[in-house]
Amino acid sequence: MTASHQKIKVGIVGGTGYTGVELLRILSQHPHVDLHAITSRSEEGVAVADMFPSLRGRVDLRFVTPDNASLSDCDVVFFATPHGVAMSQARELIDAGVKVIDLAADFRLQDLDTFEKWYKLPHSCPDLLKNDSVYGLVEINRDKIKQAKLIGNPGCYPTTVILGLAPLLEKGLIELDGIIADCKSGVSGAGRGASVANLFSEAGDSFKAYGVSGHRHHPEISEHLAAIAGEPVGLTFVPHLVPMIRGMFSTIYVRIKPEARDTDFQALYEARYSDERFIDVMPAGSLPETRAVRASNDLRIALSRPGDGDTLIILVVQDNLVKGAAGQAVQNMNLMFGLSESAGLDFVAVLP
Amino acid sequence: MTASHQKIKVGIVGGTGYTGVELLRILSQHPHVDLHAITSRSEEGVAVADMFPSLRGRVDLRFVTPDNASLSDCDVVFFATPHGVAMSQARELIDAGVKVIDLAADFRLQDLDTFEKWYKLPHSCPDLLKNDSVYGLVEINRDKIKQAKLIGNPGCYPTTVILGLAPLLEKGLIELDGIIADCKSGVSGAGRGASVANLFSEAGDSFKAYGVSGHRHHPEISEHLAAIAGEPVGLTFVPHLVPMIRGMFSTIYVRIKPEARDTDFQALYEARYSDERFIDVMPAGSLPETRAVRASNDLRIALSRPGDGDTLIILVVQDNLVKGAAGQAVQNMNLMFGLSESAGLDFVAVLP
Amino acid sequence: MTASHQKIKVGIVGGTGYTGVELLRILSQHPHVDLHAITSRSEEGVAVADMFPSLRGRVDLRFVTPDNASLSDCDVVFFATPHGVAMSQARELIDAGVKVIDLAADFRLQDLDTFEKWYKLPHSCPDLLKNDSVYGLVEINRDKIKQAKLIGNPGCYPTTVILGLAPLLEKGLIELDGIIADCKSGVSGAGRGASVANLFSEAGDSFKAYGVSGHRHHPEISEHLAAIAGEPVGLTFVPHLVPMIRGMFSTIYVRIKPEARDTDFQALYEARYSDERFIDVMPAGSLPETRAVRASNDLRIALSRPGDGDTLIILVVQDNLVKGAAGQAVQNMNLMFGLSESAGLDFVAVLP
Amino acid sequence: MTASHQKIKVGIVGGTGYTGVELLRILSQHPHVDLHAITSRSEEGVAVADMFPSLRGRVDLRFVTPDNASLSDCDVVFFATPHGVAMSQARELIDAGVKVIDLAADFRLQDLDTFEKWYKLPHSCPDLLKNDSVYGLVEINRDKIKQAKLIGNPGCYPTTVILGLAPLLEKGLIELDGIIADCKSGVSGAGRGASVANLFSEAGDSFKAYGVSGHRHHPEISEHLAAIAGEPVGLTFVPHLVPMIRGMFSTIYVRIKPEARDTDFQALYEARYSDERFIDVMPAGSLPETRAVRASNDLRIALSRPGDGDTLIILVVQDNLVKGAAGQAVQNMNLMFGLSESAGLDFVAVLP
Repeated sequence: MTASHQKIKVGIVGGTGYTGVELLRILSQHPHVDLHAITSRSEEGVAVADMFPSLRGRVDLRFVTPDNASLSDCDVVFFATPHGVAMSQARELIDAGVKVIDLAADFRLQDLDTFEKWYKLPHSCPDLLKNDSVYGLVEINRDKIKQAKLIGNPGCYPTTVILGLAPLLEKGLIELDGIIADCKSGVSGAGRGASVANLFSEAGDSFKAYGVSGHRHHPEISEHLAAIAGEPVGLTFVPHLVPMIRGMFSTIYVRIKPEARDTDFQALYEARYSDERFIDVMPAGSLPETRAVRASNDLRIALSRPGDGDTLIILVVQDNLVKGAAGQAVQNMNLMFGLSESAGLDFVAVLP
Repeated sequence: MTASHQKIKVGIVGGTGYTGVELLRILSQHPHVDLHAITSRSEEGVAVADMFPSLRGRVDLRFVTPDNASLSDCDVVFFATPHGVAMSQARELIDAGVKVIDLAADFRLQDLDTFEKWYKLPHSCPDLLKNDSVYGLVEINRDKIKQAKLIGNPGCYPTTVILGLAPLLEKGLIELDGIIADCKSGVSGAGRGASVANLFSEAGDSFKAYGVSGHRHHPEISEHLAAIAGEPVGLTFVPHLVPMIRGMFSTIYVRIKPEARDTDFQALYEARYSDERFIDVMPAGSLPETRAVRASNDLRIALSRPGDGDTLIILVVQDNLVKGAAGQAVQNMNLMFGLSESAGLDFVAVLP
Repeated sequence: MTASHQKIKVGIVGGTGYTGVELLRILSQHPHVDLHAITSRSEEGVAVADMFPSLRGRVDLRFVTPDNASLSDCDVVFFATPHGVAMSQARELIDAGVKVIDLAADFRLQDLDTFEKWYKLPHSCPDLLKNDSVYGLVEINRDKIKQAKLIGNPGCYPTTVILGLAPLLEKGLIELDGIIADCKSGVSGAGRGASVANLFSEAGDSFKAYGVSGHRHHPEISEHLAAIAGEPVGLTFVPHLVPMIRGMFSTIYVRIKPEARDTDFQALYEARYSDERFIDVMPAGSLPETRAVRASNDLRIALSRPGDGDTLIILVVQDNLVKGAAGQAVQNMNLMFGLSESAGLDFVAVLP
Repeated sequence: MTASHQKIKVGIVGGTGYTGVELLRILSQHPHVDLHAITSRSEEGVAVADMFPSLRGRVDLRFVTPDNASLSDCDVVFFATPHGVAMSQARELIDAGVKVIDLAADFRLQDLDTFEKWYKLPHSCPDLLKNDSVYGLVEINRDKIKQAKLIGNPGCYPTTVILGLAPLLEKGLIELDGIIADCKSGVSGAGRGASVANLFSEAGDSFKAYGVSGHRHHPEISEHLAAIAGEPVGLTFVPHLVPMIRGMFSTIYVRIKPEARDTDFQALYEARYSDERFIDVMPAGSLPETRAVRASNDLRIALSRPGDGDTLIILVVQDNLVKGAAGQAVQNMNLMFGLSESAGLDFVAVLP
């Protein structure tokens, strides 16, 4: 569809948050992308590089209002907006032949009641959700994504937990109740909104749990785990906040079914992800660390089975803003436009 | 005035910021203090320990509105408020026999034009400022403070720069133009207000200058340096923000007068501050670090004179919230009530 | 035993690490302590305050070699040494009437095989271990500690996990297999030894798991949980490293026994710890954060039971160097000498 | 010399430090580079990706001993070694037609006495130094670098200070005595060697000065400033350590000559660096921050002249590991091989 000399015309709606600036970082270096427009109602007329000085000399755009963005001229539009925005604009864009990738939650959950319960919004285009949207977890839904017009880009926590459990659920090797996901995220996951709780002086030298009584990613994880398993799963999910900007670490505890105790889990994971460019199954005995994926689209997985018992621990790291958000969105775009899946995404993690 | 068995009744106006919670930390452990009331309009009725969980089990107060705080029953009231609040309430309290310590800027500058230029406020009680207030830099103004009813507690940067330069200015040993104060502060100095610039994800892994074209502490430093020197001083002041919560480091560069080149500056500083409980002149060859004063009321000074030349470097560290704010305020209170100057302030720095 | 005018003569063996300097911070402010000697072979003759500038003006001691420390003149000796040192010297001190508190692991495990397996050392005084030592977890063993001559001060992780689970185990309310402790520690827990892995540039902006295949605190936790439960427990323990200096957060997952589903767990914990000065059971719905205990001896616990189901989550925070090490050691000392348990330990957490 | 289909064969000597891994990050993504060999005596046989997990899937090399590296088959060899190594091997490589880029100090100083005084080493190849080496500060020495066989890659501090002052010195606009460079560096500048001072728990929440009595970059800066100015300069240089991994911020204070007071310094800098791909002169009124260059080869400069007086402040930021080390080294390589100067270096800064 896209010849190598022809660039994809890209629009971004809502570019003033961290997923927005990360999209800009990635897309401005993407060999096949022409950044066409970026919108912000509050920052109209401001140069993107004045807001994000890291982009000085690299991105010349100014923020425009959505009305002036001529988004319908784009080949694809990314929504890096709060929940509820994409679903109000997706129909018009798709009818105009524009592909849509939503980095918020509007197209992540198929169950409308669950969506409305957790996001306190009625869904404004349930038909699009049901008939046209694809959950953009590439390593699970690659073929559907290639044909999709509309992507619900996965949440950051769900990306780690679903990819961490998929090989087990696909083979039916673990008890489906009592799965525990103890997850830890860098503070950038909380977004760029001004809030006391996320001030440096509050979050800067402390570790805490949050959302234990209920986090919006919980139903997203559960729905997609159930889709893979073919039946409901019982999940306890506890997110925590780590004093670092980027990075996510999920420690997942499962009980192996009695009949699966002889499984070579290391081999299972290696086989399952052997063709995946961005999934690294680390050697037996290794443990991941978030710095090993910092600013990259890589997701690394390690396994541990203490005393060869019936508990299996899956440890997963990613950069929440890349594989957990903007990088995965671009990975989806690459697939949708027939590009190499890793085009513009092949950057090496920044260490130290 | 205060017998050992009798406690000082203390009120705090505006206790929801970082100087407020630091006052609470210090005063709740002070052997001679009875915390009487703490006010906040926005948090009325909220338990202090619900807002600051570090105080659970230590402080039982709830925030009250200023109207209900019966502040006139107090022996002393601390204002940990934005600029402009203390000057509107000080007269009434002082007339009621209550001593007042303002941690904001209302009583730091004697020059009204300068005050109004930098704080964009007309001063509402210039007579109090002129006749009754004392600049609460203990090591400079101890005797006046003992008699004072009203204290303008120094700003954090001024505390380091003035104490860093006082021994030189008192003796007239340096050129008064071309003084450079390159200062670095932890982020807590920016306060607890919600702002994008002070989010963990913005300030958490970065170093920057700010306020180079003008910072409110500049005229405060200049006025008090001039008062000590007996003539105006020419100061270049550049504040920077360090990715740490607490701590302030000032690197001050001065030119030694030709006739003062034989001075033993190390001996001069040691003599000047030998009786000061909270000023530590470090041995020749030492260099300070902010962790060496973390959460303590200590201020440490070191000197360096490269190649025995005409440039002298004074390096000063303090905890901006303690010696640079709440601790110094309590030090003032101790003096005003005839207590040991170090009562309740003798805690050792937290390292590591 | 100790009159108020008489101070306890204290010695510290091995004071150059983080538990050593934390002991010095606490003991130098303790109203009933006379710091008598601190030993270090490598730093003999060095002033303690030269190594730890936070102690300048507060601690005048110099490091001495153990041979010159006249430790037998002390009332109590703390060992802040590597594993294996205390057991080689404890007999002689105890015979001389000196009480001993070991902050390393020599007297934490009653099972000698386990000790030797994990610490790769034969135990040199199994009789002392068996007959005279007490595991110094005050809230579990208070009465024994009051009579003890020799204390094995608990490890940092064990303190959080054992105190987090004790109320449930004492009442037999949970399944004893399948307990999961997902624990997170600040980097100071790794000690002050020079190592690449603990460099700022390695650990400073990263989150990782470690010791998943086996950590020395695992058998310590298991032994003491079993002692409380009266039977073995099945524990999965995963420690993680957080990019902060101080602080420990343990997230513990247990399954409630079917017959215990009606228990009011919040009430149970509040009752169990109602008289404990340093244990704070937070109100229902609260979640702890490490900064709320920073530099204090407090340990805070919160409970969460998602959907009122059969999984209970216990969240525990402490400062690993205080309640998890030096503070708890001093709490033990206070009990052993008939002092108020909180003497010298009543400092409020440092926030922000 | 190098056709687009032909890759440059690259060797790295000493790849286990931070400049080594940064070279690997950059070179592994460089379109015209073939990584041929990387040496380490201590890690012989270890896979590079086992030491630096960020490189898993990107770099397949194992460390070899220098003897087995067949470095003479390379087109260029980078030395990411301690001072003194490159000078012992450079002659042989250059005689074999291999270009050499030394990231240590062996070829940075033309004055041999100064070198030997500061590095405590006799120089082993003064002829190479004098006749063949070029100081690899591209924006100053571009033409010489294009012809060079041997590059002394500049130190991190010197890069910021020299580029910050060059426009002024070239035009003779400032007083040459009394220049002050107050510089702040992230901790990675201290290298990857195990040391107590650089532990997370030591450097992680503190700000300090170091090397005030003498730092090796001082003579390097002075020599090259003098070369530009045509006469000696008087420089006071104070380096500080910031609790962040990457990033360097230099605040430079100069006095404007009386006859230069009417200069438009902003215009001067913009003109001087208008063609420089990696030098960003920020708009008047802007201030730089280190995060705006994190992990990029950009160096940003801002100017401030308080009150239009005679003091000019130059503020410079760079990533010490990129423009301050490995990035600049690759920029040199690009020039030496006739490539686009920005080949493989065009990555955008990582923010947040």
